[in-house]
Amino acid sequence: MKPLGLALFVSIGFLLSSMTLRAADAPAPLPQPSVEQRLADIEAYFNNTARATDGHAVSRIPGGGPGHSAWMMTSSALVLFMTLPGLALFYGGLVRRKNVLSVLAQCLGLAAVVTILWWLCGYSLTYARGSPFIGGWSFAFLRQVGAAPNGDYAQWIPHSLFAIYQLMFAIITPALTVGAIAERMKFRAVMFFSVIWMFVVYFPIAHRVWGTGGWMNGLANPAAGIKAIDFAGGLVVHMTSGWSALVLCLVVGKRHGHGREPMPPHSMVLCMTGTGMLWAGWYGFNAGSAAAADGVAVNAFVATTLSAAAGCFSWSAVEYFRRGKPSVLGLCSGAVAGLATITPASGFVTAGSAVLIGLAAGAATYFACNNLKARFGYDDSLDTFGVHAVGGTLGTILTGVFATAAANPISLRAQLPAWWGRPCGSSKSRPRRSCWSGRRRPRPESPGWSVSRPADCAWQATTRRSVSISPSTAKKATSSNELKR
Amino acid sequence: MKPLGLALFVSIGFLLSSMTLRAADAPAPLPQPSVEQRLADIEAYFNNTARATDGHAVSRIPGGGPGHSAWMMTSSALVLFMTLPGLALFYGGLVRRKNVLSVLAQCLGLAAVVTILWWLCGYSLTYARGSPFIGGWSFAFLRQVGAAPNGDYAQWIPHSLFAIYQLMFAIITPALTVGAIAERMKFRAVMFFSVIWMFVVYFPIAHRVWGTGGWMNGLANPAAGIKAIDFAGGLVVHMTSGWSALVLCLVVGKRHGHGREPMPPHSMVLCMTGTGMLWAGWYGFNAGSAAAADGVAVNAFVATTLSAAAGCFSWSAVEYFRRGKPSVLGLCSGAVAGLATITPASGFVTAGSAVLIGLAAGAATYFACNNLKARFGYDDSLDTFGVHAVGGTLGTILTGVFATAAANPISLRAQLPAWWGRPCGSSKSRPRRSCWSGRRRPRPESPGWSVSRPADCAWQATTRRSVSISPSTAKKATSSNELKR
Amino acid sequence: MKPLGLALFVSIGFLLSSMTLRAADAPAPLPQPSVEQRLADIEAYFNNTARATDGHAVSRIPGGGPGHSAWMMTSSALVLFMTLPGLALFYGGLVRRKNVLSVLAQCLGLAAVVTILWWLCGYSLTYARGSPFIGGWSFAFLRQVGAAPNGDYAQWIPHSLFAIYQLMFAIITPALTVGAIAERMKFRAVMFFSVIWMFVVYFPIAHRVWGTGGWMNGLANPAAGIKAIDFAGGLVVHMTSGWSALVLCLVVGKRHGHGREPMPPHSMVLCMTGTGMLWAGWYGFNAGSAAAADGVAVNAFVATTLSAAAGCFSWSAVEYFRRGKPSVLGLCSGAVAGLATITPASGFVTAGSAVLIGLAAGAATYFACNNLKARFGYDDSLDTFGVHAVGGTLGTILTGVFATAAANPISLRAQLPAWWGRPCGSSKSRPRRSCWSGRRRPRPESPGWSVSRPADCAWQATTRRSVSISPSTAKKATSSNELKR
Repeated sequence: MKPLGLALFVSIGFLLSSMTLRAADAPAPLPQPSVEQRLADIEAYFNNTARATDGHAVSRIPGGGPGHSAWMMTSSALVLFMTLPGLALFYGGLVRRKNVLSVLAQCLGLAAVVTILWWLCGYSLTYARGSPFIGGWSFAFLRQVGAAPNGDYAQWIPHSLFAIYQLMFAIITPALTVGAIAERMKFRAVMFFSVIWMFVVYFPIAHRVWGTGGWMNGLANPAAGIKAIDFAGGLVVHMTSGWSALVLCLVVGKRHGHGREPMPPHSMVLCMTGTGMLWAGWYGFNAGSAAAADGVAVNAFVATTLSAAAGCFSWSAVEYFRRGKPSVLGLCSGAVAGLATITPASGFVTAGSAVLIGLAAGAATYFACNNLKARFGYDDSLDTFGVHAVGGTLGTILTGVFATAAANPISLRAQLPAWWGRPCGSSKSRPRRSCWSGRRRPRPESPGWSVSRPADCAWQATTRRSVSISPSTAKKATSSNELKR
Repeated sequence: MKPLGLALFVSIGFLLSSMTLRAADAPAPLPQPSVEQRLADIEAYFNNTARATDGHAVSRIPGGGPGHSAWMMTSSALVLFMTLPGLALFYGGLVRRKNVLSVLAQCLGLAAVVTILWWLCGYSLTYARGSPFIGGWSFAFLRQVGAAPNGDYAQWIPHSLFAIYQLMFAIITPALTVGAIAERMKFRAVMFFSVIWMFVVYFPIAHRVWGTGGWMNGLANPAAGIKAIDFAGGLVVHMTSGWSALVLCLVVGKRHGHGREPMPPHSMVLCMTGTGMLWAGWYGFNAGSAAAADGVAVNAFVATTLSAAAGCFSWSAVEYFRRGKPSVLGLCSGAVAGLATITPASGFVTAGSAVLIGLAAGAATYFACNNLKARFGYDDSLDTFGVHAVGGTLGTILTGVFATAAANPISLRAQLPAWWGRPCGSSKSRPRRSCWSGRRRPRPESPGWSVSRPADCAWQATTRRSVSISPSTAKKATSSNELKR
Repeated sequence: MKPLGLALFVSIGFLLSSMTLRAADAPAPLPQPSVEQRLADIEAYFNNTARATDGHAVSRIPGGGPGHSAWMMTSSALVLFMTLPGLALFYGGLVRRKNVLSVLAQCLGLAAVVTILWWLCGYSLTYARGSPFIGGWSFAFLRQVGAAPNGDYAQWIPHSLFAIYQLMFAIITPALTVGAIAERMKFRAVMFFSVIWMFVVYFPIAHRVWGTGGWMNGLANPAAGIKAIDFAGGLVVHMTSGWSALVLCLVVGKRHGHGREPMPPHSMVLCMTGTGMLWAGWYGFNAGSAAAADGVAVNAFVATTLSAAAGCFSWSAVEYFRRGKPSVLGLCSGAVAGLATITPASGFVTAGSAVLIGLAAGAATYFACNNLKARFGYDDSLDTFGVHAVGGTLGTILTGVFATAAANPISLRAQLPAWWGRPCGSSKSRPRRSCWSGRRRPRPESPGWSVSRPADCAWQATTRRSVSISPSTAKKATSSNELKR
């Protein structure tokens, strides 16, 4: 605990010394809104687009939207529930009886420590504007993170709600890593390692993929070096935790007696209970990543369900053909693999693609957890690498293959695997709407719902040029897509 | 697993051969909406009625409504949580220790298999327009099931969200049946049986009671042969699973040693944990069945709470008077009985009726699970018949007795038990609003909020003729109803 | 059970004899709303303020608002989930194995009995208008509690939803008390005691602090004798249950063998599972107490998370320095202490204050549960007094210290500890908005969004005088507050 305390003190000191108080921006006085603008503001809430009054008039509804906020608070609670007690039970059931308490303590301890880090500077380093590689300090101590939405990330939920929702991701990511070194590391070592890991891996990667101006932010940053699209964290959560888990279990070494004595899970009841909680909580994880209760969120919800079921089915089917009968552990692992694999894709793919991704996920992770681990002999105790790294990597690749504007009416021409880093955005094809629907202010050439034009301008025509996503457009896209296939 | 794979392949083949691609409907171009129509559209979101622009103008908010979608995503997650891990723990705690894993595997396996069936053709056979006895194929593979609402079922949530919510019901229904044959059937037999059962029982019955044009759809189909009203599945979920469970446990026969050796539940802690999860999840089941976060949903929420508590109380009271002390199992069973019994009634009855239904439920299921089972000697291991068939049947009858427009301002003159099949709807008294609030398009004689009339037409007068349900009307109905009683 | 039955019968008799049917109020006919009023009504939904049409015109959206209702149904389910199975598992894990069933039965039994009491008269005695010390009988049997909002408590959710949400608080409060006398009282004694306790302690205290016209209602009652502010029940839930627990465990006496033989918790897995459920459910408890999905709810959500983590951290840190290593029980207790302590403050304090409150909570309750209990020798089996009374009392004091208009733009000049009872409200500084945002009708001198003024009146100017809370105002308040500190 002492090194942890020390690390915290050092970071507090560094932070305070680098912090400067900014004078509040003095906004120019705006006119009162017209009836047309007030109506358009309310309609923007339904369509999760930027307010018509932005930069033009005072908004009468400047805060979050109740429906979107309701869903995002629910989602935040669900993602916390995934870690406490979902993941704790899932992992706790898989270890030997003597080690279950250590897993529980690690999950709880990580929730506490990461939350404090997030408040101190984590949120700021991830989501404040800074360099393409790391965020700035302006949101340290959650300053300036209040009830007003931050248009960079979400138009219709309070900025503080976005911050707390993202915290839940920051909690579960190091907790996933714990699975690889379960039964071997002490509590204080895990805490110390995780604090370092957050600064070295999580904050920078999350900023690059999701932060405004991030170097790999393929949706909101036209200047991104690598145009990654990652809806809910295939890269940021599952790949970082999974690959780190592999490195970590190679560094830490094997458990005493590994390979010589059996180390069966001590309670499949706990493991299955954890699986159910993870599945239910994953709806907050994936559908919540729309940062709104809109059509994209619902699409993610549907894809998540189908992929989880397909993963569960395909792992069991492989197990059945190879061993003669499926196991409870297989059903659980397959479901989690399906969930992890659909994560980066959930907001971008159709129902059919989700089933295919889930089927691929179950089979691929089955072979990774059985054949690959046996062949190379690393001791990935609870298959964090096998499920999360393999699933997350597969999902990130398949997102590039299956992402379609039919599922998410973003102008996705970039249907090659995003992490290949090919330049994919000409000015015509660049994404017009991020997965967070976020832009700070309307760009002059793409004014959202145009409030300055006369009311008789064609809605249909405007839709094609604007950021608005109306379900009727989505439906058309689906139909034409279906016909072409 | 082989028969299952075979069954799936056969159904896929059948499906693909019978499927024809439809050309997309070419809608006639509609005019832009007026300010009056835009306002009326937004107000329709609050009142969960049809859009004023339907058929008259382009809607600026054609997708789902954020608040309703938020609640329905939450509800879907809650209903999944009822099965995984809720029901798995409830049943898992009641069996002997050696059989707990088989129960967990069956619940997980059913979630996987039913989800895939639902995507393939289950949703389509249940909810697509077809004959009065079975649905059509137009929604197979969830085609044409996207972000736009399907007015047949819900005006303000995406069609795909409705489909995934209904999937959760399709998962839990066969899982309930498992309780009757727990400890006796193999995993693959349960899977195989359940696939057949879905096609033979669930899809047809659910279509008849809830599908558009269904033969027993007493709310939305004026031509229904039997005018059943079933808010959240007393008939579709609890009666089908409960009665099937009875047949199944008679066919399968008794457990070895039944009646000769004691078979006590192995863990009341698991059982009680499952009960708590079922209770919490049931809010998604019942209140979610309004397909919106409106007053009907809240009414169902209240009725569910009161009936669960009353069932818990009355089972324990009977147990206390007959055995001298209540048991944990009794408290759990009573709560579940109260929940199952209120299910068909929850959206139609007042608070006082809900308490009465709960009290009746606890007592009736107590006698069914103790006296009836002892007398006839069938081996209903976990009382699926005793709780769900008896409770569901009682609830379906009592729905007819207690349903009132005070709780749900549908024009319910049909207060006789719905399944008696008496013709109850003259043109004057036919239900004007389904429990799903759904109609595809405004009927000329009942135009919802009339957008073409001048703004000064009386709202109060219009309300009585329209489908709009304003709480002020509800309140008045309640008051007058209270005075009459 | 007999005394309980008797008590119920007596209260029913008393109730029925004192009940009189009221004639329904005949409202004067109101004019139809103008476009301006309809727009203002919809905007009031976003800002969670009173309808512009109140008293001026018929509202087209008289019921609940979908987003707010969605969050409040979710919150109600979450708070129930805290008791069943959250608290049951938390307490169940801490007792000896032989007593776990009694704890589960008590939690379930209390849920049943309190729900029936609440329906009979509990809600009415707490929230109906009556004297400053106890509510009236007008809401007995939940009569007149329907889909229309009750402006005294919440503008945008159905009255019945408010009633059922508050029921969940009434269930968990006596269940918390159970922790102090676990392993010593019989089921029927606990039930009997709790029924009495509800009438003697809970209904009166809750009415005084939260009821309209309550004697200690510092937010909504300008004439309150004691101006308490209690956002989510630090006083009403944690102090009442915690101090009652102390009295009760002194009266009941120690467990056999207390102090002579060890009584270790039988399962930290159950305890930790319960902790996770409590944490997730607490979001419904605290953020739900805004009775809306608005900025105040989000503020409570953030504060709850930070305080739970800080409490977990600080308890463990103290344990580490005093014993050399943290324990799972310590991590769980610290989290619950952080949650209990932030409860009264969550809707009133900033993120930084929440961290400080959490840190104080973990340390204070550590010493209360270890040193204080050892010194005075009372047998508080599961530390209900140590965590809930000490935490709740500390939180109620710190609420007075840290409450700020930056977190909740109520005109809070009363920053002294509210329970000190100092008169703090001159006519200029009296709270203009209750924590429930509730006022029955617009007061003439403070008309909310003024619908009768011409549309060109300044929004900014109006905001300062009205009850509307716009995030832009909140942001400004935050900025100026930050600068001053």
